[in-house]
Amino acid sequence: MDNLKLIEKLSKPSASKIVLIVIDGLGGIPHHYSNKTELEIARTPNLDSLAANGICGLSEPIRPGVTPGSAPGHLALFGYDPLVFKIGRGVLEALGIDYHLRPGDIAARGNFCIMNQDGLITDRRAGRISTDEASKLCQLIDGIEIDGVKVITRPVKGHRLVTIFRGDDLNPELSDSDPQETGVPARNIAALNTEATYTASIANNFLAQVKEILYSERAANMILLRGFSRKPQFPSIADVYKLKAAAIANYPMYRGLARIIGMEVLETGQTEQEELLTLQHNYGKYDFFFVHFKKTDTAGEDGDFNRKVISLEHIDDLLPELNKLGPDVIVVTGDHSTPAMLKGHSWHPVPVLLHSRYCRPDKVSHFSEKDCINGGLGRILATDIMPLAMANALKMDKFGA
Amino acid sequence: MDNLKLIEKLSKPSASKIVLIVIDGLGGIPHHYSNKTELEIARTPNLDSLAANGICGLSEPIRPGVTPGSAPGHLALFGYDPLVFKIGRGVLEALGIDYHLRPGDIAARGNFCIMNQDGLITDRRAGRISTDEASKLCQLIDGIEIDGVKVITRPVKGHRLVTIFRGDDLNPELSDSDPQETGVPARNIAALNTEATYTASIANNFLAQVKEILYSERAANMILLRGFSRKPQFPSIADVYKLKAAAIANYPMYRGLARIIGMEVLETGQTEQEELLTLQHNYGKYDFFFVHFKKTDTAGEDGDFNRKVISLEHIDDLLPELNKLGPDVIVVTGDHSTPAMLKGHSWHPVPVLLHSRYCRPDKVSHFSEKDCINGGLGRILATDIMPLAMANALKMDKFGA
Repeated sequence: MDNLKLIEKLSKPSASKIVLIVIDGLGGIPHHYSNKTELEIARTPNLDSLAANGICGLSEPIRPGVTPGSAPGHLALFGYDPLVFKIGRGVLEALGIDYHLRPGDIAARGNFCIMNQDGLITDRRAGRISTDEASKLCQLIDGIEIDGVKVITRPVKGHRLVTIFRGDDLNPELSDSDPQETGVPARNIAALNTEATYTASIANNFLAQVKEILYSERAANMILLRGFSRKPQFPSIADVYKLKAAAIANYPMYRGLARIIGMEVLETGQTEQEELLTLQHNYGKYDFFFVHFKKTDTAGEDGDFNRKVISLEHIDDLLPELNKLGPDVIVVTGDHSTPAMLKGHSWHPVPVLLHSRYCRPDKVSHFSEKDCINGGLGRILATDIMPLAMANALKMDKFGA
Repeated sequence: MDNLKLIEKLSKPSASKIVLIVIDGLGGIPHHYSNKTELEIARTPNLDSLAANGICGLSEPIRPGVTPGSAPGHLALFGYDPLVFKIGRGVLEALGIDYHLRPGDIAARGNFCIMNQDGLITDRRAGRISTDEASKLCQLIDGIEIDGVKVITRPVKGHRLVTIFRGDDLNPELSDSDPQETGVPARNIAALNTEATYTASIANNFLAQVKEILYSERAANMILLRGFSRKPQFPSIADVYKLKAAAIANYPMYRGLARIIGMEVLETGQTEQEELLTLQHNYGKYDFFFVHFKKTDTAGEDGDFNRKVISLEHIDDLLPELNKLGPDVIVVTGDHSTPAMLKGHSWHPVPVLLHSRYCRPDKVSHFSEKDCINGGLGRILATDIMPLAMANALKMDKFGA
C-alpha cells in the first residue's frame, strides 16, 4: 500500500489545528569564514525555544544526494512522493497566476529573454525585466491562432510568463525550447512521441511568430519555453488527510501547487508580516495552514549569506504571534536547502522541527543543521512529515487491531 | 525481493539461542510533572547494563506517524511487514484461545455489550464483565444452526468472545456489526462483495437470535461482531528463519499470533515470574523464544503512569535470572509505544536494545527513549530487528560471493 493510501485510510477529522511553516531553502552549509551555516549564525530564540520543547530531525526531500526543485520539494512536504506525483512546470505557472486550465490545455513556462543578432541567447531572463514590462510584451503576443489552436500568453512575475495552447488533439510530450544556458541558440521543440508531432509543429510555428513580433523590442526580443504539461489529477488533501487546508504564500508557484492538491489559497501580501496577519485573520476557518516564506531561498540563490541570516531572524521574530494562536501542532522546515555558498538549491537534508503537546522531546535546544542531526525524529523522508504532524494532532486512527 | 524472502535465502540453523523480550507498549512520552517518560523514571539497572554492553536504537513499527495495533506491531517484530501480512481480528481471537479453525471457517471477534430499550448501545464492553460471566452467556448462544451453518461461540477474556461460522460457501467479506461507539444502534452486517451475501444473511439471522436469547440477561444483553476473517497462510518462522521457536505469552491474542507463524506456544502462568520459569524449563528445547510481557501496555492504556513504571521495574528484576541462561542474543523492545499520557497506543518509535557477543556497542548506557535516539542501531524498521538478531546469533550466510 502506498503511503498516501495508508494515511487516507487512517486519517480522521478533528478540531485540532496544524500549522506547517515552510522556510524556503532553509538548510545551508557553513560559510568559509565563520564555519557556521546561515541558521547557526542567525539569532533565532523563538525557533530555539520551539526546538527545546519539541522534536527535531533532518528531512530528506527526495532521496540522499538528490537536489529538489521547488515543486517536488513541496509535494514531498505535503506527503505526496515526488517520484510518483509529477507536475509539469507549465501547469504550475498557470495555476500560480490563477489561470484556469481546461482539460486538454497544454501549458508551458516561458522566460522573456535576449537574443543577439546571431540568434544566440545572451540573457535567459532579459535582465530580470519587471512584471509591468513583461505584461506589455505578453499583450503583443497573446491570442495568436494557428490551425484552430489558440495560444494564450500571460505574464507571471518578472521575466516569467505562461503560454497555454488550447485546441483539439494536443499532446504535452514536447521537449523544451529553453536550453537553460546562454551563448547558444534556442532549441527547436521536438515531439517526444508520435502523438505530439502535431503539437510540436504548432509550438514551433508559434515561436517563429513571436520572434517576428518581438524582433524590435528592447526589453526582451524572444521567449524560451519549457515544461509543456497538462494539469494532473492528484488525490486532494481533503480526501487524504480530511483537512480543511489553507495556503498562505505570496509567490505564484506555491499558490498553484497548493491549489492543485485542493488547498484553499488565501489572499495575502508580499511581506512575512502580512502573511502572519492572513494566518491570524483566517485562523478559525481552517484546521491546516501551509505558510510559505520565500525570501530565505531568494537570498540563498543570490549567494547572499547575510541576507539569508536576516530573513531567518525576521521569520523568527514572527513566531511569538503565531504561538499565541495556540496551534496543536507546529512544524517548521524547508522544501530543500539553498546554501548561500552554493547559490542554489542543494541536496543537503533540511532541518525539521515539530512541536506539539504529544511529541516526545529530544535533547535539541538549538534549531540548526548540526543540532538536528541528533534530534529525536532522526533522518526522515519529507513525505513522513505530514503523517507525523497528523499523528501529533491526534488525527489518525491506529493501524490494525 | 521482499525482506522475508531475502532472509529465508540467507538464514541457516545453528545451536545459538535468541530471546526476544517484548515489553508491550514499552515506549512513552514525558509526564507533564517530571518531564520524564515511564522508562526514564523507572529504576532499571539490569536493562541499563544490557544497554551499556549492547547496542540500542529506536524502532518504527509500521512507518512514521502510524500507530500500530497489537497484531501488526507484533508481526513487524517477527519480521513480517504488517502492510503485507494481514490477519483478521476474528482469526486472532480464535487462535488466541487455542480454537482450531478449519479451512472455510469464518471467525469474528465479539464483545458482550449492553443495549438500552431503544436498541442503542450504552456500553460496548458490558462493564467489562468477568470471563466467568461471559462464559455463561456464551453457553446460552453456542451451537445455533442456521441453514446448515453451525455458529460456535467461545469466551475469550472479560467481555470478549469469538464467534465461528462453520458451513459450506461462507465468505468473510463482511462489514462489522460493532459501530465502535455508544449511543447508536448496532449495525446490520453487510456483504462487501456479492459472494458474501449468503454469509451476511446467516450472520444477521444469528444476531437476531442472540438478541432474543440474551434479552432478559442482566450482565449483557447483546453481542457486537467485528473482523470477520479466515485463517491466513503465512510463511512459517521455521521456513523463514530455520528456527525452532517457542512463544511465552499469557494473553490469548499474542499466543494466537505466534501460532499462526508456526511458533510453539508454551503453557505458562499469568505472572512475569511464571513466564520466566516457563523459559527456564524449556530453554533446552528451542533456539528462539518470544517472551511477551503485557502489563506495561495495560497500565499505559489505563493512563496509570506509576503502574507502568512499576511494571517496567518488575521486568527489570527478572533479567539477572534470564542472563544466567546465557542466550547468545537478547533483544528487548516493544510492539509499539503506549504512553500513559495518551492512554493508548501511539505512533512514537519504540526503544530497542540488542545484546550479543558480536554486537558493536554504542555509547548508550541507559535504556530510555532519549538515549536510544543516539544508539548505534539508529532508527530502524521493526522488521529489521529479526534479521539483526539472526545475524548476531550467526545464523545467516553472507549475501553473494
